[in-house]
Amino acid sequence: MTSADFRRIGAAVSNWGRWGAEDERGTTNLITPQKIVEAARLVRKGTVFELGVPLDADGPPAFPGRIAPLHLMTETGAGQEYPGGARWSDDYVVMPLQAGTQWDAFAHVWYDGMLYNGFPEDTIGPHGARRCSIDALAGGVTGRGVLLDVARHCGVDWLEGGHVIGPETLDAVAERQGTEIRPGDILLVRTGWWGKFAAERDGAGWISTEPGLGLACVRWIRDHDLAALAMDNWGIEVAPGEDPAATNPVHCVLLRDVGIPLGEIFDLEALAEDCADDGRYEFLFTAPPLKVAGAVGSPISPLALK
Amino acid sequence: MTSADFRRIGAAVSNWGRWGAEDERGTTNLITPQKIVEAARLVRKGTVFELGVPLDADGPPAFPGRIAPLHLMTETGAGQEYPGGARWSDDYVVMPLQAGTQWDAFAHVWYDGMLYNGFPEDTIGPHGARRCSIDALAGGVTGRGVLLDVARHCGVDWLEGGHVIGPETLDAVAERQGTEIRPGDILLVRTGWWGKFAAERDGAGWISTEPGLGLACVRWIRDHDLAALAMDNWGIEVAPGEDPAATNPVHCVLLRDVGIPLGEIFDLEALAEDCADDGRYEFLFTAPPLKVAGAVGSPISPLALK
Amino acid sequence: MTSADFRRIGAAVSNWGRWGAEDERGTTNLITPQKIVEAARLVRKGTVFELGVPLDADGPPAFPGRIAPLHLMTETGAGQEYPGGARWSDDYVVMPLQAGTQWDAFAHVWYDGMLYNGFPEDTIGPHGARRCSIDALAGGVTGRGVLLDVARHCGVDWLEGGHVIGPETLDAVAERQGTEIRPGDILLVRTGWWGKFAAERDGAGWISTEPGLGLACVRWIRDHDLAALAMDNWGIEVAPGEDPAATNPVHCVLLRDVGIPLGEIFDLEALAEDCADDGRYEFLFTAPPLKVAGAVGSPISPLALK
Amino acid sequence: MTSADFRRIGAAVSNWGRWGAEDERGTTNLITPQKIVEAARLVRKGTVFELGVPLDADGPPAFPGRIAPLHLMTETGAGQEYPGGARWSDDYVVMPLQAGTQWDAFAHVWYDGMLYNGFPEDTIGPHGARRCSIDALAGGVTGRGVLLDVARHCGVDWLEGGHVIGPETLDAVAERQGTEIRPGDILLVRTGWWGKFAAERDGAGWISTEPGLGLACVRWIRDHDLAALAMDNWGIEVAPGEDPAATNPVHCVLLRDVGIPLGEIFDLEALAEDCADDGRYEFLFTAPPLKVAGAVGSPISPLALK
Repeated sequence: MTSADFRRIGAAVSNWGRWGAEDERGTTNLITPQKIVEAARLVRKGTVFELGVPLDADGPPAFPGRIAPLHLMTETGAGQEYPGGARWSDDYVVMPLQAGTQWDAFAHVWYDGMLYNGFPEDTIGPHGARRCSIDALAGGVTGRGVLLDVARHCGVDWLEGGHVIGPETLDAVAERQGTEIRPGDILLVRTGWWGKFAAERDGAGWISTEPGLGLACVRWIRDHDLAALAMDNWGIEVAPGEDPAATNPVHCVLLRDVGIPLGEIFDLEALAEDCADDGRYEFLFTAPPLKVAGAVGSPISPLALK
Repeated sequence: MTSADFRRIGAAVSNWGRWGAEDERGTTNLITPQKIVEAARLVRKGTVFELGVPLDADGPPAFPGRIAPLHLMTETGAGQEYPGGARWSDDYVVMPLQAGTQWDAFAHVWYDGMLYNGFPEDTIGPHGARRCSIDALAGGVTGRGVLLDVARHCGVDWLEGGHVIGPETLDAVAERQGTEIRPGDILLVRTGWWGKFAAERDGAGWISTEPGLGLACVRWIRDHDLAALAMDNWGIEVAPGEDPAATNPVHCVLLRDVGIPLGEIFDLEALAEDCADDGRYEFLFTAPPLKVAGAVGSPISPLALK
Repeated sequence: MTSADFRRIGAAVSNWGRWGAEDERGTTNLITPQKIVEAARLVRKGTVFELGVPLDADGPPAFPGRIAPLHLMTETGAGQEYPGGARWSDDYVVMPLQAGTQWDAFAHVWYDGMLYNGFPEDTIGPHGARRCSIDALAGGVTGRGVLLDVARHCGVDWLEGGHVIGPETLDAVAERQGTEIRPGDILLVRTGWWGKFAAERDGAGWISTEPGLGLACVRWIRDHDLAALAMDNWGIEVAPGEDPAATNPVHCVLLRDVGIPLGEIFDLEALAEDCADDGRYEFLFTAPPLKVAGAVGSPISPLALK
Repeated sequence: MTSADFRRIGAAVSNWGRWGAEDERGTTNLITPQKIVEAARLVRKGTVFELGVPLDADGPPAFPGRIAPLHLMTETGAGQEYPGGARWSDDYVVMPLQAGTQWDAFAHVWYDGMLYNGFPEDTIGPHGARRCSIDALAGGVTGRGVLLDVARHCGVDWLEGGHVIGPETLDAVAERQGTEIRPGDILLVRTGWWGKFAAERDGAGWISTEPGLGLACVRWIRDHDLAALAMDNWGIEVAPGEDPAATNPVHCVLLRDVGIPLGEIFDLEALAEDCADDGRYEFLFTAPPLKVAGAVGSPISPLALK
């Protein structure tokens, strides 16, 4: 494979223009009202799974240029005197928008001067992204969620760093689970990588490598017309990458060419356990991003309702 | 009314101990799995309503001590050279956790040295709240949402600042709408106040007063065993308050004694329009807070699914 | 005057190459060791004048895109238990580097693709300025300070907004004061504009206009080979500007072509009073910027020692 | 030694009330105008030494609860269109006020409910310190600086972590150097610890221990009536401390009882070299803190002028 490959694949799977020249919602357009109604019918037990990891100083290690979320109190009740005796507290957060569990906006990664749907890269600047920012997806991302538990399929707590997940594995897991993948689905892929961090707390090791998708999965994702993709590793794609000549090719193609939101650092442990227990790997999924204007990512608290 | 009144009412409506001595989830405990299943069945059209307001510099005016969300880019693609040509952007936010559409945690307001469920106030300090912080509610707040459109009932675009909404009005609106309020419901009350800001952009006027609940509503809320309450004004209760001797008595009693999450600055305009159109004022509501450890509030992107 | 004028003047007064092709210190190179020794000899009374304004929420209004300094406590002593009983406090600041009294780095303003000394503009990016950042001046800015009290010369507490100060006025003030301007001097020009804000606290009015230097002063500054220039207004040059076709031409030429640090929002009131009292308008001046790597400005606490 | 010891010593060296009941300037009161005039006369070569370390992501490791300074650009010139072609950049910093080279305010450390001069500890709260904050020292700290180069005296590049410097060593160094210590002096003590970090970049090791002053130095400092004390380690006093039963006893006594500003993480390498060369260990020292209202510390760019 060479760095030309992802460009060729990107062209083949492109959704540019599919929902109009001004579209900034990408594959989330596939979540039609009918899909939402069907997804809601998947709620049968009334169990709610939190898929977000805590935002605190003990969280997953930050990438260079990012910090752990900084939570600062401006009121604690100390020194207050109000008629009637009320007291209050108040607080701030200083955080990278992609600290912890989060969506990547389409404007997060691109190549060759253009973002998803052909918007020029100079729509991104010091004031944020004028196109393809995360607030364009605030109405979503809600629909039928489907879990593919690759780690369980492979009989391990977690896949090793550098393990490449290919489309044949996704098919095998789906078949073993008896899970049908449908257009407009929000796919969650479990590698066990978050569970590894939770168990070992070895941040430096955790961030230095990861199991993840290989570039070949991109066409599979497009062929299935998925609406969104989220995983329990920190970067969706395998690290180190398959090809030293291409940096984050899976991001490049999925965000820019396919226009599909990518969710990272999801905690899928309890959900996966439950799915294995009852054999149902589908659920109502919802993870609306914050409407930070012009942002290229957003922290989220995703939920799965079964 | 005197400032003693809200203490007496608080004692009368208290939920302390109802869900155990260690409980930090308050009335969200009322959202049982059965309630969630029933709520999901309310999704019939597949329409998704975003109830969050944009987080930007043009948003609602900040209270003293708060700023507008500050969105800062750390990568814009400029100056990058990666193998294969990938480019990326990245960003930070600096914001009060209660800027924009948000939940108040139970630890946000209290009196007489104790928070909800009797936790001592010194569990709140410069490092955050060790008890009753917003991440305790991350599994929620999801369930049956019900809208009471008071402004429409009164035949106005928005109620005037200082207008006190009493329980008899809530009853009248529910009756007129044909809406049944049930235990475990998440109640949304529309005053039109956000619509006023959206129409006029007069921040100083908007923040100086508001229509809102009177203290008498507290017992009504408790009697109906609501799970959560959210409104389109900036502070739930009427401002200026009914009694100069009591500061934010509705917050005091609802957060500390009842233990019910309060949502503020919701955009209910489009949802209200739709409810008036189809006559259905109930829906699946979901608004999971960010899991910022120890935080006393959280920005949210609430959704209503009909 | 047209916008071409400041380019012509810029070319005429350029210091590019004067201190070598790699120079990032500009006119501060004029402060030779001998100048420093001479400046120190001006300390005769042992009086120290603070020229910095307080950094607080009540300070001068921020420009669009800037906020007032945000001071946040992370420790207040509350909840601490240390052997022996020690307690401590700790704090953060979130601030624009040009909030309050500050230096502009040469990288703060430029035109035609090049910064001071011909460095290309793409040396500035999301990670800061690789060239001409403020930390390049950390060794300074210390030397002989000279005050020209234009407001006092004109017999007013402050000049009016829009008042253009020309070189002939600077000469007249110097002559009236009996002040000799020498190469390597750090010139402070008092318009009274800070005093106006301190007296009236009318932020909106204060920031909307100001008295300041006209473009004609640029050549005067270069002819006198000043090492630095600081004023008590918010932007050195008159606002509104003399020519609608040129935005901040004085900044453009002084920072980019002359390479002279500009100091803004200095409190010169007490110093000016003292100078008028004893007739000595010269002093040891020192205002070292913080060494924030890559920053294009720095808050400072300037001192004048007489 | 027991934890009672530092209280006894604190009482013995107390300056409370010495400059009045409202005093917040402590020993900097000792820097009289005459002292300033004398200090200025020490400037003979015109050499300026920067004593501040760079504020960047590669700086000294932060204490728990602190981060490295975060420098964020809000304007880079990208996307700008102004009449005449001017471009500009702008930036923010998010930083602990005691990141890097800094002063501790008297409100930074205390015990037994009272700060320097007997101010109650509840003057410190979420909004900052109403008493003994760093802006009270903005007029200073400027005066006669004196360097005691302990590392050079001991014939090492740096003292080992845990090395206790006692008063007899300070006397020996002063005698060997021929340096007279006078009331109102600002004392700089070199341990070589910053040089160790600069040479090795081993942050974890550097922050885990340090050479520093023992508690016995406190009386020596008070007897010499020093106006300020600064060192090249991260915390003035030896770490681990001499007595596990007392946390930071040197801070406790110096800040609270003596009321002397403490400067940390100074880069004394070049200055020390020069002093050894010319045999002159005295100079004009200036390090005005930023006037952040209510702050308990401030980053500084200290200068020594010889």
